[in-house]
Amino acid sequence: MVDIGEIGERQLIEDFRSFIRKEGRVGPGDDAAVIEKGIVVTTDIVTFDRHFPAGMTYEQFGWYAAAVNFSDLAAMGARPVGFTAALALPPTLDAQAAYDIMSGIDQCAEFCGTGIIGGDTKDGPGIVAGTAIGCMDDRKPMLRSGARPGDVVAVTGPLGGPAAGFAALDNGIDCQEAKDLLYMPIPRVTEGIELASSGIVTSCIDLSDGLGTALNTVCQASGVGIDVEYSFLPHEDFVEKISEESGIPMEKLLLGWGGEYELMFTADPDRLKRLYDSGIEFSIIGMVHEGDHPELIRDGNRSRIDYGEY
Amino acid sequence: MVDIGEIGERQLIEDFRSFIRKEGRVGPGDDAAVIEKGIVVTTDIVTFDRHFPAGMTYEQFGWYAAAVNFSDLAAMGARPVGFTAALALPPTLDAQAAYDIMSGIDQCAEFCGTGIIGGDTKDGPGIVAGTAIGCMDDRKPMLRSGARPGDVVAVTGPLGGPAAGFAALDNGIDCQEAKDLLYMPIPRVTEGIELASSGIVTSCIDLSDGLGTALNTVCQASGVGIDVEYSFLPHEDFVEKISEESGIPMEKLLLGWGGEYELMFTADPDRLKRLYDSGIEFSIIGMVHEGDHPELIRDGNRSRIDYGEY
Repeated sequence: MVDIGEIGERQLIEDFRSFIRKEGRVGPGDDAAVIEKGIVVTTDIVTFDRHFPAGMTYEQFGWYAAAVNFSDLAAMGARPVGFTAALALPPTLDAQAAYDIMSGIDQCAEFCGTGIIGGDTKDGPGIVAGTAIGCMDDRKPMLRSGARPGDVVAVTGPLGGPAAGFAALDNGIDCQEAKDLLYMPIPRVTEGIELASSGIVTSCIDLSDGLGTALNTVCQASGVGIDVEYSFLPHEDFVEKISEESGIPMEKLLLGWGGEYELMFTADPDRLKRLYDSGIEFSIIGMVHEGDHPELIRDGNRSRIDYGEY
Repeated sequence: MVDIGEIGERQLIEDFRSFIRKEGRVGPGDDAAVIEKGIVVTTDIVTFDRHFPAGMTYEQFGWYAAAVNFSDLAAMGARPVGFTAALALPPTLDAQAAYDIMSGIDQCAEFCGTGIIGGDTKDGPGIVAGTAIGCMDDRKPMLRSGARPGDVVAVTGPLGGPAAGFAALDNGIDCQEAKDLLYMPIPRVTEGIELASSGIVTSCIDLSDGLGTALNTVCQASGVGIDVEYSFLPHEDFVEKISEESGIPMEKLLLGWGGEYELMFTADPDRLKRLYDSGIEFSIIGMVHEGDHPELIRDGNRSRIDYGEY
């Protein structure tokens, strides 16, 4: 007898992958599954236990539960068409809190251009299992496996904010801006659709497990290496301030934490104008080359980028 | 402060309905939501706590978790195209048990013509939140609201089996056949597709909350009355045997319990040949008429049929 606790969650998910089929074009290993008719589906659980940092409201918890799912759709370039919420909540929970959770989910779904289309509730310890459904329309899904040597690597926004928010909480540092990024991540749905529409993006992944993990995942899935230029990594000023005050190195905040919901993508450098024309914001952080892992270049020195700890 | 336990689960689901949108043609109140492109989605939670009767295996629990969702698709006439499973399992659970749950889900999905396309796992008390995705193809979704006076009322199979299984367990009566129906309900996916294809079905609902509740729900949604002829209600012999041995009246087993996964539908009586030609099995149990509630006719006596207690 081996219990789940010994195996670990990551291994359990790996074991479960054996059951997940390539029903359509895209199966396990990407942010979401693409099945027939360009339907994209993803499911993610969030829990009071693990995803409810101090200071978060129930409404923000609901937003978060929806956002993590919509972010997976965004990474594929799917347009959200519906969201279902299965809630297992303690019977002792204040009814207003339950209502607030649903309201937060609803607001996030509306922000992403859709709504709640179904749900279920049972007693439980405080779990929201959300499922987001999207459509590819005429776009090709963006995968993790398409990066090619010569492509540029870019991200859709500043990094390290949610990590800094967590560090601020943990170290009693006052920085509401950072905490807000932790409590209410913005799924990059519009950006994902524009990226997929451009036809020049070769791979895409969200940063929910952190930039380091995302880089390693794309390198592995695409069979390439990536050089990241440290000085190119975009971040807000407060990330540096929190790094100094908490003693947590900037590299750790920018690369080693999850809970971040920007997209990372690779693209054909010769046709970048299409992306500039689309009006979405992005920052180039590095280049794809022949190889099998990501490296960070900082002040001319190279170091291997590891998977994050998240 | 009012907590959820005081409000009750049914009221909580009612409250949540205010958030559920009519995204497409069909919104809350039916077995599943139909959104654009004929995509049908439904989500249901099952828990160790409430849906794991004595003698059930982990594999059967997994099957059950999938079956309840596929049954909702069946009631709409949708063809299953994917299933996602979000599992919150105790860290102390035997890894083989977790594997068996996934295997049960997988087998049920395969039985329904599709597969698992995504999933997530976290720590939890033993909860499976399943989401089934289906397609209407060229069929119109069957709703609860279309029954018209003059329609016949029918069910796709024998009734009272799972209720009898539960009664057998509860009263120490030996009847594996009844227990098997409780442990492994068969979602009537093929039947649902045939019913919707026939073009003569005016309403449909699954019996997961029991026949009495289904009848009341359709009467309310359609604004009709229904007469059910007791002697027409199909059932296996063992249901009678278990009724006698347990002292639970037949009416209660046939009408008052849930956990049953046959479909109940109403149809145009003049074109029933189409259904006979399709080869699916069904039994006519009554007629729709002007009115607002269902009644049972037994030995010439009429009585009102109530919502079940399930």
